[in-house]
Amino acid sequence: MIPRYSRPEMTAIWSPETRFRIWFEIEAYAADAMAELGTIPKDAAAKIWEKGRDAVFDVDRIDEIERETKHDVIAFLTHLAEIVGPEARFVHQGMTSSDVLDTCLAVQLARASDILLADIDALLAALKRRALEHKDTVTIGRSHGIHAEPTTFGIKLALAYAEFTRCRERLVHAREEIATCAISGAVGTFANIDPRVEEYVADKLGLKPEPVSTQVIPRDRHAMFFATLGVIASSIERLATEIRHLQRTEVLEAEEYFSPGQKGSSAMPHKRNPVLTENLTGLARMVRAFALPAMENVALWHERDISHSSVERMIGPDATVTLDFALARLTGVIDKLVVYPKNMEANLNRFRGLVHSQRVLLALTQAGVSREDSYRLVQRNAMKVWEQGADFLEELLADKDVRAALSEDVIREKFDLGYHTRHVDTIFSRVFG
Amino acid sequence: MIPRYSRPEMTAIWSPETRFRIWFEIEAYAADAMAELGTIPKDAAAKIWEKGRDAVFDVDRIDEIERETKHDVIAFLTHLAEIVGPEARFVHQGMTSSDVLDTCLAVQLARASDILLADIDALLAALKRRALEHKDTVTIGRSHGIHAEPTTFGIKLALAYAEFTRCRERLVHAREEIATCAISGAVGTFANIDPRVEEYVADKLGLKPEPVSTQVIPRDRHAMFFATLGVIASSIERLATEIRHLQRTEVLEAEEYFSPGQKGSSAMPHKRNPVLTENLTGLARMVRAFALPAMENVALWHERDISHSSVERMIGPDATVTLDFALARLTGVIDKLVVYPKNMEANLNRFRGLVHSQRVLLALTQAGVSREDSYRLVQRNAMKVWEQGADFLEELLADKDVRAALSEDVIREKFDLGYHTRHVDTIFSRVFG
Amino acid sequence: MIPRYSRPEMTAIWSPETRFRIWFEIEAYAADAMAELGTIPKDAAAKIWEKGRDAVFDVDRIDEIERETKHDVIAFLTHLAEIVGPEARFVHQGMTSSDVLDTCLAVQLARASDILLADIDALLAALKRRALEHKDTVTIGRSHGIHAEPTTFGIKLALAYAEFTRCRERLVHAREEIATCAISGAVGTFANIDPRVEEYVADKLGLKPEPVSTQVIPRDRHAMFFATLGVIASSIERLATEIRHLQRTEVLEAEEYFSPGQKGSSAMPHKRNPVLTENLTGLARMVRAFALPAMENVALWHERDISHSSVERMIGPDATVTLDFALARLTGVIDKLVVYPKNMEANLNRFRGLVHSQRVLLALTQAGVSREDSYRLVQRNAMKVWEQGADFLEELLADKDVRAALSEDVIREKFDLGYHTRHVDTIFSRVFG
Amino acid sequence: MIPRYSRPEMTAIWSPETRFRIWFEIEAYAADAMAELGTIPKDAAAKIWEKGRDAVFDVDRIDEIERETKHDVIAFLTHLAEIVGPEARFVHQGMTSSDVLDTCLAVQLARASDILLADIDALLAALKRRALEHKDTVTIGRSHGIHAEPTTFGIKLALAYAEFTRCRERLVHAREEIATCAISGAVGTFANIDPRVEEYVADKLGLKPEPVSTQVIPRDRHAMFFATLGVIASSIERLATEIRHLQRTEVLEAEEYFSPGQKGSSAMPHKRNPVLTENLTGLARMVRAFALPAMENVALWHERDISHSSVERMIGPDATVTLDFALARLTGVIDKLVVYPKNMEANLNRFRGLVHSQRVLLALTQAGVSREDSYRLVQRNAMKVWEQGADFLEELLADKDVRAALSEDVIREKFDLGYHTRHVDTIFSRVFG
Repeated sequence: MIPRYSRPEMTAIWSPETRFRIWFEIEAYAADAMAELGTIPKDAAAKIWEKGRDAVFDVDRIDEIERETKHDVIAFLTHLAEIVGPEARFVHQGMTSSDVLDTCLAVQLARASDILLADIDALLAALKRRALEHKDTVTIGRSHGIHAEPTTFGIKLALAYAEFTRCRERLVHAREEIATCAISGAVGTFANIDPRVEEYVADKLGLKPEPVSTQVIPRDRHAMFFATLGVIASSIERLATEIRHLQRTEVLEAEEYFSPGQKGSSAMPHKRNPVLTENLTGLARMVRAFALPAMENVALWHERDISHSSVERMIGPDATVTLDFALARLTGVIDKLVVYPKNMEANLNRFRGLVHSQRVLLALTQAGVSREDSYRLVQRNAMKVWEQGADFLEELLADKDVRAALSEDVIREKFDLGYHTRHVDTIFSRVFG
Repeated sequence: MIPRYSRPEMTAIWSPETRFRIWFEIEAYAADAMAELGTIPKDAAAKIWEKGRDAVFDVDRIDEIERETKHDVIAFLTHLAEIVGPEARFVHQGMTSSDVLDTCLAVQLARASDILLADIDALLAALKRRALEHKDTVTIGRSHGIHAEPTTFGIKLALAYAEFTRCRERLVHAREEIATCAISGAVGTFANIDPRVEEYVADKLGLKPEPVSTQVIPRDRHAMFFATLGVIASSIERLATEIRHLQRTEVLEAEEYFSPGQKGSSAMPHKRNPVLTENLTGLARMVRAFALPAMENVALWHERDISHSSVERMIGPDATVTLDFALARLTGVIDKLVVYPKNMEANLNRFRGLVHSQRVLLALTQAGVSREDSYRLVQRNAMKVWEQGADFLEELLADKDVRAALSEDVIREKFDLGYHTRHVDTIFSRVFG
Repeated sequence: MIPRYSRPEMTAIWSPETRFRIWFEIEAYAADAMAELGTIPKDAAAKIWEKGRDAVFDVDRIDEIERETKHDVIAFLTHLAEIVGPEARFVHQGMTSSDVLDTCLAVQLARASDILLADIDALLAALKRRALEHKDTVTIGRSHGIHAEPTTFGIKLALAYAEFTRCRERLVHAREEIATCAISGAVGTFANIDPRVEEYVADKLGLKPEPVSTQVIPRDRHAMFFATLGVIASSIERLATEIRHLQRTEVLEAEEYFSPGQKGSSAMPHKRNPVLTENLTGLARMVRAFALPAMENVALWHERDISHSSVERMIGPDATVTLDFALARLTGVIDKLVVYPKNMEANLNRFRGLVHSQRVLLALTQAGVSREDSYRLVQRNAMKVWEQGADFLEELLADKDVRAALSEDVIREKFDLGYHTRHVDTIFSRVFG
Repeated sequence: MIPRYSRPEMTAIWSPETRFRIWFEIEAYAADAMAELGTIPKDAAAKIWEKGRDAVFDVDRIDEIERETKHDVIAFLTHLAEIVGPEARFVHQGMTSSDVLDTCLAVQLARASDILLADIDALLAALKRRALEHKDTVTIGRSHGIHAEPTTFGIKLALAYAEFTRCRERLVHAREEIATCAISGAVGTFANIDPRVEEYVADKLGLKPEPVSTQVIPRDRHAMFFATLGVIASSIERLATEIRHLQRTEVLEAEEYFSPGQKGSSAMPHKRNPVLTENLTGLARMVRAFALPAMENVALWHERDISHSSVERMIGPDATVTLDFALARLTGVIDKLVVYPKNMEANLNRFRGLVHSQRVLLALTQAGVSREDSYRLVQRNAMKVWEQGADFLEELLADKDVRAALSEDVIREKFDLGYHTRHVDTIFSRVFG
């Protein structure tokens, strides 16, 4: 999480102030529930809220206490006692630190998910707008980086739309995975705390009670969460890579917006580089990498060890902040993407007609030529185009074996570009409904 | 995928014979649909089925053709033409290799998922049986590998049950992710094939049509699938690690079944080692590692490149076969696990009464002592137990400050073991319903 | 390790036959040393060699024994006893299974390294040959996929040569890391075996004695080995990616050799795709992924656990076989790469003169214009080239502010292509000596 | 890089102030070399040093300029021009941003390496001191977590010493890998800059000239560097895991130092947990994870793309700062580790004599019993110890078949603990010389 790749709303979730505020709420709600159950005096619960509701927790003071106790939650509770007074002894009754820490993490990750979901929604809106705009903008489809057959630029964007719709669904699942509350005591047995406290706090915080916990919420939930972020990052990389390709000098079918005053290179004033999408490619590598330590975190020892903690202190903020930044950056790129339909057309026509090879192949098979012979006939003419710059249509018309099967009219008809876009509406209705 | 860690049912999914059989079905069903739409003659579709339905595809012959064409699907189609005869030219009309390859992979991964789901069901059944058996078997809960407070062995297993229930749900999602069919032609535009062919084949194969594809089914689906397997593997590692810990010589609360004739060490005849769960730990590392190349596969170039193919040829079989083996092995371990309740009891009592420290702490706070003072009072007596082997109860009774707040009866009451298991039924009803 | 991506010489290293042969040699050499030290009878050592030297170890029989003992080394020793007779009881005296297993793995990885080193040598030879061939073949250098300034195709290959020279050195180090022998008994104390046995066997097998082992050779060595293979794979990916880019339809500066009879697509007969280098990209992902479980293997418990074993049974063969295949494939690609200097020239000239922007910038600063102003002057003319297809030289000559600082002659001089290749010889002498 | 896991010396390397200072030095040294070669006026080079040597670069101002130019090096150069005046136009002549960025990163990583090397030296010193202290402290060796045969605690530490000695060597190699300087211009051809400038700057900064670069220093170097850090982290994890095991309640052979005032748990005042080594386990996961994006960074497009940059902005600081912190923490743990030889002895004797099973096995084979029969005889007595708590020595003495081969005296002699430590001096002289 470095400022360059961070946005304030997501960063705020991970500040000490936010963390201590959530900790307080967990303790205070738990006190309410305990007071209701008669475990602690109702006055005590009221006092905790009264003193703590608007308190500013002193991060430096808490750090100072932690230096002695070497325990962050105890440091917070000690500071809270300084604020609340004698009734503070009723705080945290029967709870263990992880009840606070893990439930707080659940709140933070749920909030982070909400921001990420909004990010994806914004990206989807941009993708949809541009997809509709370019629904019929014909461009060459490429497999292996080699011209294949025509498609439209709108279909490319519709594909991305469908992909991020899936990412959204995954994130909804991932959010459900981690939005649980555990207040179950030292080893998860509720020995010193009533299960109803957990249910009450969960409800207040918008979480579900963890059905069975140890000292901690099981880490398979978090592994699934961060793995999901890694998959979403990979989809960002895919779309970013597409744009980088389209901006290549020789292709130049689309280009990132280049603002007035922007400079592309310290040495070469002529440069306009796809730096945003390249940056997204690198950020995706990072978010993806975080999936692994999250998975290694699952196998905690017995009822818990604390090896997961340092990992989560890093990847909790780093993965969510980076992904938030990346989604927003990608949305901006799509929103302002400069598209060059003329270049698309020019590229498409570069190997005059070669992209229609399949249609000729199929026409030959329909005319009774075997698949293998048809392939050979078409391939030998196509290779002349690659190697000698010949015109594909003319070569075919001049090929006796081809002409034995197909008339000139039939061959010419196979070179109709419109043929390839007949099903665009079908595809769009599948994607956008 | 090595024989040592493979089971035949899963392995069979990945044999060339199975693959070619699925390829045939895709082509033949597509031919049916095309015949229905009038694109090819109905007789041709019938002939394809007639000749191919019971054909044995000659793997060596296909390999031989591939050595020349350097293209596996073309090699298969050429071989199929040898079987079907002239009507073979109506096979694969308007389709691209990936239509066959990706739809086949979807069928294979869906079948693999079904086996894995059955594996998890078997594991869940074993876990439930043993959990109920040991619902009230008291054992020490440990955090950081250090005695914390009592729990039951049944709760440990219930936790694993809940975890694998989540894994099952994730796998159901993952199966949905990859069970799609794409028959959309060279760049996904349906230029030379009607979208209804895709719908028909999808239906016949138990798949859903891919809403929008390029030349390939988008790889974010596969990334999510293999990431999910990695998370499941991590849960296997967690439970395996728990058992390895329990079998440690000094702990010995449970032990893998050691069969007659088994030998633990070539050098030391006294050894009985948790080799199955150690093995599971290693296998989990492998399945987890496969998630990464799957995520790197997402960013294919434009309408596809073929870099994902070699990865999937490896991790398709390796991840599913290894996970199938691991789940089955873990089920066997749980099923036959030798549990030593007496050792659990002996371990629990090792530091006479120390595990009740929290209850004394809470009693002190309830009696009006501040949280910080209470902690200090209990900690100073507890440390005498660690360091001098003192008896915790006696130390507390002899501590004037403690006694100023708590009577002997109250203190003694805090050493009741039964207190810790009051909520076991609640937990079990949450997990098992 | 699947046949499609395997070569026989490397595969043979990992066959059961090879493994059992190495196991025998370890045991037999150890027996020699023990006989020399008087621990076992000299006759026994002689008999072991006599019976075992040319024996064919029966893999099925060993598997059968292992099914009962569940221990592979014991199974082998039992089978060896069937071959050697009563003297077999002097085999494996004071040794532990890992002495055999780990030393065998060291031999296998050392042999695998030798093949890989030869692979790299072949690749280096191909790179050098093609680099010298194209030392002066001018081509556009690209940063961000955008035209930057001219370079030569030979420099591109010289860079790859330098990179694989580094890879070679890393592999030499990695080989040293894993070429150690441990025969130190159950927990590495040499309790029942003299350290001189280890030294003797190490010497016979071309290994170094492990200075201190536990039951096993420490796995940090193997982690370093597989991490190194991952780095080498990443360099393969880099060069493969370069070629994929060069073969793009719009670029087409180089192309993989396309053999007679080869087919690029089942649907589109016109296709020639960079399938070999795309394949290498995928294989690189796999080899890289194997580095992680190798690193996770380091933290074995105490004097060893066996979690590393399943990982190594997989990645030992998979990483070395795949990397061997990839290096050989890359060598073939480089060797037969079809290079198109005319296309390089055409691409270079596509934006008439734009690539000389830096030289004009520098000339302006040398003429007294500030860096910031110079940049602005050049950039504003360059953008006209991008956006309006203007001629860069003409625009500059027509720009009053530019002309105020630079004469026409000076400007024209900056458009000399030869200027960029003045230091090619320096670079080549640095790389090739 | 979060404050909790950071130390100031390493963190300072990555501050903007340090970065801009190094950038300045690169530019200023390059100016010196250019002045010497006559490319720019000597006065200009002198002025650059005069104005910049003690300048404080204004980070906020640079950020402000970057917001417009969207280019960090140009922003710095613009700010430098504000400081230096008109002569600033001679700064950066013929150089490209990456010349500055990559050479700076080399300086930073080399400095970071020097700190890490010092960290390892401190760790080695602590390990050696404690190893010598406990050279003869007998403890049980464990394989699979199960008692195997005796070793000494000193040997355990000597093993760690040997392992970190290897880590040190690897780090020396890794430092060499990244300590190179590239000042080769826009695409590495030295078109606008003399190669002697690169040589001069390299020498001044303690680097070696990069033999051949593109626009950037090849990223295989950095991949190797970060992979090496990942391996070192894995060794940290191994030693940390060992200590965590030793501190388990049932084992308690060693314990992290627990300071006065420290609290182990918010709920349970009796707890003393191995939190430092658990923390190290988590940190190791992070450093290891960073190896992957570093490897993915290798395959930059053509002469460079900028996808590596965001990755390195994160892992450059994160990996080095975290590893520095982890090494220092581990050194502290080793230094103050509380060792319990009495508990080691008690654990060793827990299964009275069982650990001598191999010696009895060997004695039987030496007495003429076959290996298989010997194994069976010993195993059947050993199992009575595990299962019925029998005394191993007594069982053996009472076993007729054993006694048929071995006399009572011989059997009793095999139970000598001193036998296992005969070679400790040999091992120590191998490790410590």
